[in-house]
Amino acid sequence: MGDYMKPLTVFDLVHDGLSLLEMELAAVIESEAEIMTDIGLHLLRAGGKRLRPALYFLCAKAGTYNLTKIMPVAVAIELIHMATLVHDDVLDNASTRRSIITANACWGNNTAVLAGDYLFAKAFSLVSNRDNNIALNLLTREICDICEGEIIQIRDNFNVDQHEKDYLVRINKKTAGFIAVSCQLGALAAGLSEADVKALYNYGYAVGMAFQITDDILDVTASSEKLGKPAGNDLKQGILTLPVLYALGKSSRGAELRTLITAGDNMTEDNLKRCIDIIHDTDAVEYSYQKVAEYLASARNSLPKSVDCKIGHALLQVADFIGLRQY
Amino acid sequence: MGDYMKPLTVFDLVHDGLSLLEMELAAVIESEAEIMTDIGLHLLRAGGKRLRPALYFLCAKAGTYNLTKIMPVAVAIELIHMATLVHDDVLDNASTRRSIITANACWGNNTAVLAGDYLFAKAFSLVSNRDNNIALNLLTREICDICEGEIIQIRDNFNVDQHEKDYLVRINKKTAGFIAVSCQLGALAAGLSEADVKALYNYGYAVGMAFQITDDILDVTASSEKLGKPAGNDLKQGILTLPVLYALGKSSRGAELRTLITAGDNMTEDNLKRCIDIIHDTDAVEYSYQKVAEYLASARNSLPKSVDCKIGHALLQVADFIGLRQY
Repeated sequence: MGDYMKPLTVFDLVHDGLSLLEMELAAVIESEAEIMTDIGLHLLRAGGKRLRPALYFLCAKAGTYNLTKIMPVAVAIELIHMATLVHDDVLDNASTRRSIITANACWGNNTAVLAGDYLFAKAFSLVSNRDNNIALNLLTREICDICEGEIIQIRDNFNVDQHEKDYLVRINKKTAGFIAVSCQLGALAAGLSEADVKALYNYGYAVGMAFQITDDILDVTASSEKLGKPAGNDLKQGILTLPVLYALGKSSRGAELRTLITAGDNMTEDNLKRCIDIIHDTDAVEYSYQKVAEYLASARNSLPKSVDCKIGHALLQVADFIGLRQY
Repeated sequence: MGDYMKPLTVFDLVHDGLSLLEMELAAVIESEAEIMTDIGLHLLRAGGKRLRPALYFLCAKAGTYNLTKIMPVAVAIELIHMATLVHDDVLDNASTRRSIITANACWGNNTAVLAGDYLFAKAFSLVSNRDNNIALNLLTREICDICEGEIIQIRDNFNVDQHEKDYLVRINKKTAGFIAVSCQLGALAAGLSEADVKALYNYGYAVGMAFQITDDILDVTASSEKLGKPAGNDLKQGILTLPVLYALGKSSRGAELRTLITAGDNMTEDNLKRCIDIIHDTDAVEYSYQKVAEYLASARNSLPKSVDCKIGHALLQVADFIGLRQY
């Protein structure tokens, strides 16, 4: 079972939903093809924070809450997330995630690509009924956005002439949009007013932006051990994140950083260390955390007043957690 | 635009649908991410027989035929097919298909994986409305089957102890099921009786089995030029098709064939030629064509009598075309 319960006590309020979710996920990944079931179980055991379904449940609790009725969308959300991670790990040639071996490292790229497709299809099949047309529509559009975000990221790799704005557009498509839609779907399931649905979407968007920027900060500050994947991995792949872009613009050694990055695909550990040193010589990390704080403030301000204070409190806690997390 | 019109005059009856389909496909693949649009256009220009939507249209013509209403499912069917081909080419590391460079060869594996995901999501987004719930349900289950089929294929690669039955299960999941569902969806769109829907499903299944077996025969008989991809490609990858399995069981040089295949991944051109010679020394190709003929007879016998004779005639012609095709 996932490890979401230990670190994220902020999700206590939706413990019922998250527990049931684990069981439903385990049931749904069962396949006639044994390897597919094995991969699914492996992914489930690898755990994860279940951030998206947790936010979905939290927002759903702000109104009418019928767990059985709203469960398929929660399962679909997590399956889609799992599918994108599986494909991501293929794209990044990653061998570990959350300190656990990835599907591609374990079963090969081919099987991992198919497993991702399978999880996508399973997700859609769960919501392919009249009750869930809106969810399906939002989720499919969201996946298109995620793919576009990833494609733009590949295009922009090693491009030292991009701006903070390009980065923000990209992480919105890649990450924040999906978290926003998870909140939106919860609010819709709760039967909230149009204004409140929009407000919770905005909350999710801001939390998502903060989440991704934190992730990108950790790539240049955390140890591999804490991350459960190699540190500096993004930078090595030419993915230029906020701290890197900031340092490119502000560092007195900006030209050196440019040269190190544009040297291309095969950055040595030494050069990676030099890049990270240059970044840390600026206030790039501070600046990036400032951005995180701004998004989190915006998330807090987005919370609709009509939402029950217990739910509102939990949503605030999630925002705080995002800003403080170290992994 | 696709080249479906030239070879497949059997599809004249649904020329209206197929023409409109090309336009709709071109409109739907338009993306904010320019590369995504480029890949989509590349795939469209690469053409294809449009077999699945053509069968869908043909079956739909057997009853009420409202082209505007039934078009989204046709577009979804072809997008899903395109997505599976894009991912297939990544899995096979293929550099050409229909004599045209593949997406992975042109843009790299990463972009191709994402492009496939994008096409899947676009397909589902088209049918994510109340009118198309049944279609969506059938299509998502079909994609799960296709993934399972491909996974089983990877598992069975180089396994000389598999039987004809394993092969038939695999190609049903991998190919025939989708063609069957395309016919089923057409019949449902036409508002045919349950019995006729089932009959057209069976027709599609049989046509699909014949189609895949023909494909597998061509892999050991046709020239690379005619195929638009390298001949013997499946065998090289350890995909054991009907003629190969037959020869393994019947050839006096069966043991030699076993050894050549189980030697693994890096079959030389010389050894590939030896394998193909061993296969041709048996009546494997004849036997396989016999199977094709049986499936085509079953397809013909499945056609419901209630279907208009013009439609029935076209469906018979499609069956004949499948059996005679040389590429």
